Amino acid sequence: MGKKALYVYRFGGGKADGNAKLRDLLGGKGANLAEMASLGIPVPPGFTMTTEVCRHYQHNNGSYPEELAAQVDEGLRGIEKQVGRKFGDPRSPLLLSIRSGAASSMPGMMDTILNLGLNDETVEGLIRETGDQRFSFDNYRRFIQMYGDVVLGVHSEHFEEQIRVIKTKRGITLDTELTAEDLQQLVQAFKAVVGEKGATFPQEPREQLWGAIGAVFGSWNGDRAVEYRRIANIPDDLGTACNVQAMVFGNRGEHSATGVAFTRDPATGANCFFGEYLMNAQGEDVVAGIRTPQPINRASAAALGMSATHQMETLEELLPACYTELDQIRHTLEKHYRDMQDVEFTIESGKLWMLQTRAAKRTAAAAVKAAVDFVEEGLISQEEAIQRVKSEQIEQLLHHTFDPNAKQATPPMAKGLAASPGAAVGKVVFTADDAVAWCERGEPVILVRHETSPEDIHGMNVAQGILTACGGVTSHAAVVARGMGKPCVAGCHGIAIDLAKKTAHAGAVTVREGEWLSIDGATGEVFATRLPLQPPVMTAAFQRIMEWADLFRKLGVRTNAETARDVQVALEFGAEGIGLARTEHMFFEPGRIEIVREMILAESLEARKKALAKLLPMQKGDFRKILALMDGRPVTIRLLDPPLHEFLPHTDDEVAEVASVSGIAPHKIREITKALHEQNPMLGHRGCRLGVTFPEIYAMQAQAMLEAASELQQEEDIESDLEIEIPLVGHVNELRKLRSVVEHVAAEVMKQTGATVKYTVGAMLELPRACLITDQLAKYADFFSFGTNDLTQTTMGVSRDDAGRFLNPYIEEKIVTRDPFATIDESGVGRLMGLAVESGKKAKKTLLFGICGEHGGDPQSIDFCHRLGLDYVSCSPYRVPVARLAAAHAALRHR
Amino acid sequence: MGKKALYVYRFGGGKADGNAKLRDLLGGKGANLAEMASLGIPVPPGFTMTTEVCRHYQHNNGSYPEELAAQVDEGLRGIEKQVGRKFGDPRSPLLLSIRSGAASSMPGMMDTILNLGLNDETVEGLIRETGDQRFSFDNYRRFIQMYGDVVLGVHSEHFEEQIRVIKTKRGITLDTELTAEDLQQLVQAFKAVVGEKGATFPQEPREQLWGAIGAVFGSWNGDRAVEYRRIANIPDDLGTACNVQAMVFGNRGEHSATGVAFTRDPATGANCFFGEYLMNAQGEDVVAGIRTPQPINRASAAALGMSATHQMETLEELLPACYTELDQIRHTLEKHYRDMQDVEFTIESGKLWMLQTRAAKRTAAAAVKAAVDFVEEGLISQEEAIQRVKSEQIEQLLHHTFDPNAKQATPPMAKGLAASPGAAVGKVVFTADDAVAWCERGEPVILVRHETSPEDIHGMNVAQGILTACGGVTSHAAVVARGMGKPCVAGCHGIAIDLAKKTAHAGAVTVREGEWLSIDGATGEVFATRLPLQPPVMTAAFQRIMEWADLFRKLGVRTNAETARDVQVALEFGAEGIGLARTEHMFFEPGRIEIVREMILAESLEARKKALAKLLPMQKGDFRKILALMDGRPVTIRLLDPPLHEFLPHTDDEVAEVASVSGIAPHKIREITKALHEQNPMLGHRGCRLGVTFPEIYAMQAQAMLEAASELQQEEDIESDLEIEIPLVGHVNELRKLRSVVEHVAAEVMKQTGATVKYTVGAMLELPRACLITDQLAKYADFFSFGTNDLTQTTMGVSRDDAGRFLNPYIEEKIVTRDPFATIDESGVGRLMGLAVESGKKAKKTLLFGICGEHGGDPQSIDFCHRLGLDYVSCSPYRVPVARLAAAHAALRHR
Repeated sequence: MGKKALYVYRFGGGKADGNAKLRDLLGGKGANLAEMASLGIPVPPGFTMTTEVCRHYQHNNGSYPEELAAQVDEGLRGIEKQVGRKFGDPRSPLLLSIRSGAASSMPGMMDTILNLGLNDETVEGLIRETGDQRFSFDNYRRFIQMYGDVVLGVHSEHFEEQIRVIKTKRGITLDTELTAEDLQQLVQAFKAVVGEKGATFPQEPREQLWGAIGAVFGSWNGDRAVEYRRIANIPDDLGTACNVQAMVFGNRGEHSATGVAFTRDPATGANCFFGEYLMNAQGEDVVAGIRTPQPINRASAAALGMSATHQMETLEELLPACYTELDQIRHTLEKHYRDMQDVEFTIESGKLWMLQTRAAKRTAAAAVKAAVDFVEEGLISQEEAIQRVKSEQIEQLLHHTFDPNAKQATPPMAKGLAASPGAAVGKVVFTADDAVAWCERGEPVILVRHETSPEDIHGMNVAQGILTACGGVTSHAAVVARGMGKPCVAGCHGIAIDLAKKTAHAGAVTVREGEWLSIDGATGEVFATRLPLQPPVMTAAFQRIMEWADLFRKLGVRTNAETARDVQVALEFGAEGIGLARTEHMFFEPGRIEIVREMILAESLEARKKALAKLLPMQKGDFRKILALMDGRPVTIRLLDPPLHEFLPHTDDEVAEVASVSGIAPHKIREITKALHEQNPMLGHRGCRLGVTFPEIYAMQAQAMLEAASELQQEEDIESDLEIEIPLVGHVNELRKLRSVVEHVAAEVMKQTGATVKYTVGAMLELPRACLITDQLAKYADFFSFGTNDLTQTTMGVSRDDAGRFLNPYIEEKIVTRDPFATIDESGVGRLMGLAVESGKKAKKTLLFGICGEHGGDPQSIDFCHRLGLDYVSCSPYRVPVARLAAAHAALRHR
Repeated sequence: MGKKALYVYRFGGGKADGNAKLRDLLGGKGANLAEMASLGIPVPPGFTMTTEVCRHYQHNNGSYPEELAAQVDEGLRGIEKQVGRKFGDPRSPLLLSIRSGAASSMPGMMDTILNLGLNDETVEGLIRETGDQRFSFDNYRRFIQMYGDVVLGVHSEHFEEQIRVIKTKRGITLDTELTAEDLQQLVQAFKAVVGEKGATFPQEPREQLWGAIGAVFGSWNGDRAVEYRRIANIPDDLGTACNVQAMVFGNRGEHSATGVAFTRDPATGANCFFGEYLMNAQGEDVVAGIRTPQPINRASAAALGMSATHQMETLEELLPACYTELDQIRHTLEKHYRDMQDVEFTIESGKLWMLQTRAAKRTAAAAVKAAVDFVEEGLISQEEAIQRVKSEQIEQLLHHTFDPNAKQATPPMAKGLAASPGAAVGKVVFTADDAVAWCERGEPVILVRHETSPEDIHGMNVAQGILTACGGVTSHAAVVARGMGKPCVAGCHGIAIDLAKKTAHAGAVTVREGEWLSIDGATGEVFATRLPLQPPVMTAAFQRIMEWADLFRKLGVRTNAETARDVQVALEFGAEGIGLARTEHMFFEPGRIEIVREMILAESLEARKKALAKLLPMQKGDFRKILALMDGRPVTIRLLDPPLHEFLPHTDDEVAEVASVSGIAPHKIREITKALHEQNPMLGHRGCRLGVTFPEIYAMQAQAMLEAASELQQEEDIESDLEIEIPLVGHVNELRKLRSVVEHVAAEVMKQTGATVKYTVGAMLELPRACLITDQLAKYADFFSFGTNDLTQTTMGVSRDDAGRFLNPYIEEKIVTRDPFATIDESGVGRLMGLAVESGKKAKKTLLFGICGEHGGDPQSIDFCHRLGLDYVSCSPYRVPVARLAAAHAALRHR
């Protein structure tokens, strides 16, 4: 209160009131203009009105702080002094640009008014000074149009209409054919248009200025800006700043130009200067697309795919002094900002002016490459490098993508959920068997299903990608696809599948079997065409970032895998263990499912044990493979989990097959199958409930694991670190009983083999009740793993199989803002997890806590797991790098 | 430590070391013997060794505290002094009885050893004293047998064998035909048996005594006792006491007798002395059932159903002095204990001795009657009266029961879950339509189904009772039956139903359509016969107890009801409001279901609104009826909750009917029905998810309620207190949106009608997530009601429809000790409820909290709700009295 409030921050001539840190007060653009000015970089002098002015304007019915007018006058005087012109002076008029600029870039606000200060008198002064009548009237008529549209509310179309009228009269078609006289007439016509709409174009430059300032601050509450903020979750009271700068002209002749540049290649991150420019032009001309911009240098030409022999005029060659200065500024900015920049520049009569600098948008590959290079150049630390790469970007590097230009030119036929990242192209098939048949003929296929089931695995395995009409991001299709590292778009409700006709249609578009389809599992888009693919980029820089991430993260990263292939992929990606090996996935393999069915249909303990005895060596073989590959790293193996009826035969063929294997009559098989039907299988006879009612199944599985580990120890000298996991625990007595089943088997196996296998027993926490009684469970558990898929289902009371019908509308209507199956619902599921960790650790300090739900690979959920103090996250193999990076981010964020 | 430890508590001759309060130390029997002695009631003198001795014995390998022997000796000297005999003295031998006695009666422990102290010498003394050789040797041989069996481990059968041998030799069949000589021979034979088994019968009385004491304390850890304690949840370290008393003989001739009596009629509670006795007999003889006991007085004879002319010899008439003394003791005991007593007595040669007194077992009716009478007699307070009646007992009074004798004589054919109390008898039918048809012919029926669905309602409505093979205590059948106050046995897995043959069989028993069946919904028993029924007893005493309960309880008691009949029943039972009116129950009525189906099948908003407009007046009529009956009491009405497909047509006839009403083609109807199918409907598109996706449905329901209340106000001057409940809320935005839908409708209705209706909006808490975010929900809620049925399902991850397959084995294997759908699972569901109340009340003090799940009528759950501080419980009409009493119990228990 003692100090007078500062609303206007000046910059220019090597000095500035503000700096880059005042982004909230000056907006991104204003803060960086001030910073550049202080660095001695040539920026057209000007000043920034703070976001505080905007807030004042919003809260006080469009009025300004008392001190503002005087400070603006002072700012204007500063500009006048630096450029040697005077605002409103017909002899040497100062022209201004007015731009809004919030802390984060925000569409929907007023963008720019150029040439402010022109009127019937000053335009004559401009003509005198430049000797260019056409240039001057063109600026004037453009100004009236912009001002009329933005400040006075006269729609642009009325001005465009006048241009059409004069062109018709003159029999011409291009704007460039308009003469100075035509433009002078247009100025009159435009003024008349403004008058007809009940407004007046102000001749007084100060009135123009305040009108424009009001438009900038008013646009903060424009419909589009408000809507954008709502979507992007930007608070309404941040406000925008308003930048007023002396005009510079890139269209003043042969020594003038305008352009944009990146301090490094934004596509690859390579350390070479990249940019485009237009001679004798203004920024608008680049946007209008009338002329094709030229590369600023040979490196840019190469990056743009132009051959060395290509006819071109680079800035480097045409205006070498300006180019050299620009290149120096490039280095100055990078050193100063310690990041890749994206700049706008204008050259007016051989004099370079910088209009903007900001952190450059870049591809995933460029982000990684630049971050690593910056560390090696000594500009940033490893921590900063890690934080500069978004974990979502890492995922892009592991998968094919579509050629961005081709994709941009193609409207998608439908959009579903981004269920498993990567781009895939293939011919449409509608059944798993067809997928296999077409693939055998050498055809790449996209498998399109209502939803997939375990019986589609062989088709999914050969397909390039999977598209389902139902199911969410944790549906069978999505989970399996992610496990396979295969692109998948799930829950694409817009598509109607006709299995009989073998067609899928969305609106008017119909795709038939054998026609090309492209799916983008990173965005959920589906294209009824064959889009060109780009291969994944796995560079040395990527490896480096990953190594650095490992230095900082506190969370362990494991993988969910049970096939040798998945385990190998995960190890290559840096998995430190297996957090979830699902034994039931092994049950679906051909040659096994029949025996599994025999086990389920068994009508006596003896019959069941007979079937289990056949499964034992198979499971043992599976486990031995996994344990050998993991070579002493921890391996969590979950005992049988799904409802038994998932394994049951459905078709007559399957029934006949099982009948012949098991000797049970087909009608009896159908009867048992029917008896096993459940209203809500998700909440039914599954998980450890199977273990309690049929302990012999769990005993067989435990025996298989322990024998596998024993054999490895004795035959191959490989130690194992087995974590035997009991699924769906809800009551301490379940865990107590089943732990003792496992311990009994383990003692037996070790007695028989003489081996000493390291194993622990723990529980999957996937029911709310389990989370609430970890103090009780702790007594019988060495570890806990959150199964957040099922935990989300039960906590929210949402079946992921059925959620599509309301979860999509819910997300659209913003009842929920995120898919809770993709990102942990912190208020609900997360709170339960917190309670579980708290009471669990209180009861037993040494308890290991992990997460193996799909959320284990989601960066935001990983951040939450870090905050909870979990020991590790486990995710599908292709997400392991994402998880490593996200875990490092979390550790750095919450240091 | 300063004071010498007291292990032996003496009693007799009007004095005692202990008293009734020392039950834990002296056991129930010993404590009451001491108490009676102090009251001057004649008890055979004796002493009690404390439970502490038992604990010492258990923890010290069967040894005794050092001080014990001396204290026992002192105790013996006391007895000797009082009876003028000496232990082991052949001239005038003291004989003893030894009995165990824990704090609560416990089968499996050693019961009694009589006549201890007899040996080859003392038996001669007894002969000399009594002049009765047969009596003396009979006592001796009985003693050897008991002692051999209980202390020496020689099985009784070996002694019985000797009796058979001698009978055969003598050519007789009855024990009473054995002469004194025979019995003397048996004594020798018995001693030989003991010897053959490697043991020795000790002649030394002190050795006999310590052997018997060791047997008592050792029996605490007998297999049966341990098993019983495990089941009854009695701690193992309580221990038993051991009572040593002078023998008295009811078999010493014509002036001796033995008997049992109740201070009031245990069947009705009427204040008249009731008992049976046998002249010249011992307690054993009553048990053996060789002779039929006689009533002690005319009142007992009448209570036993004997006519006044019946030939009988009452104690009152035969031994009037003894009877008078006994009757005086009866009054002394009741006054002293302030409760109905059940006593054992023996008369030896005209002298009355009391052997035991304890609180009398009594029927529900007797419990209520006696409690009320005791208050009126000034013996106990109202609080005590309330606490003496168990809430489960109250329920018996509201329903028919089976004649207990008939029931005891009939083995059940199967046993299911006690799903809705009451006894029912009827002829078996297997479909709802058959039930109606048979009833129209005037036949009472029991409806037997695999499980019931809403479409069986008409059959359930006319049936006497319902029996289902599947489903738990919260299955459709159970819930509806309880609502109707109709007996139901659910989940009777032992029964196999053959619908085609119209038979049900369990093991070898088969019941055909039309055959008699009796079911007991209070026990789950099913009888393949027609058992005689007893009507419910709703006495003035019952009303009185209820009124008193209301004085003390803190919890409100409401009912779950939506039909006029249920509402009336509930009001008669004292319901203070409706805690849950389920609007969907009204949808199944004939003439409506077709319109409901039309609404669901509607393919456009317009079509749906058309169907809703038809439903509006019907719902309004329903609501008006309920609100009028409730006359200003609070009424919670829940908006539509179940998955829409529950209402869909299944049969061809139904499809055709809907097609004609709605104009939608049958194949289209089948298509929509199929599309609405869900994997897990419990977790699917239901509850407020319907309201969010089809707000017009909720709007119609809100309109119907508010218009009904407006009309009542304006036409009948009846005010309403409407609580509009949003089901299955999981996210704050659901509640926010739907509250605004309701508020919008309410404003409209009030504007149109000009009425001012009192209404509030709240949420049903039935998802774990809802319980975790009550702080957020509080902003948009006036009340919360715990829907603990669904909350239990989601918290535990158990579908009640499917739980039977593992929940029954779980309860049998003691993985869980109670059905969580019957009694709130406090560690899981209860903890969530606690969190919900805590954060909800923190966010908004005025929030009303209730419970409307099935648990609202369960006494143990009601106690939990009281501790949580809920405002009310709501239960089915027939449970309202139970809830009122249980709520009073809770309030008194936790004062």
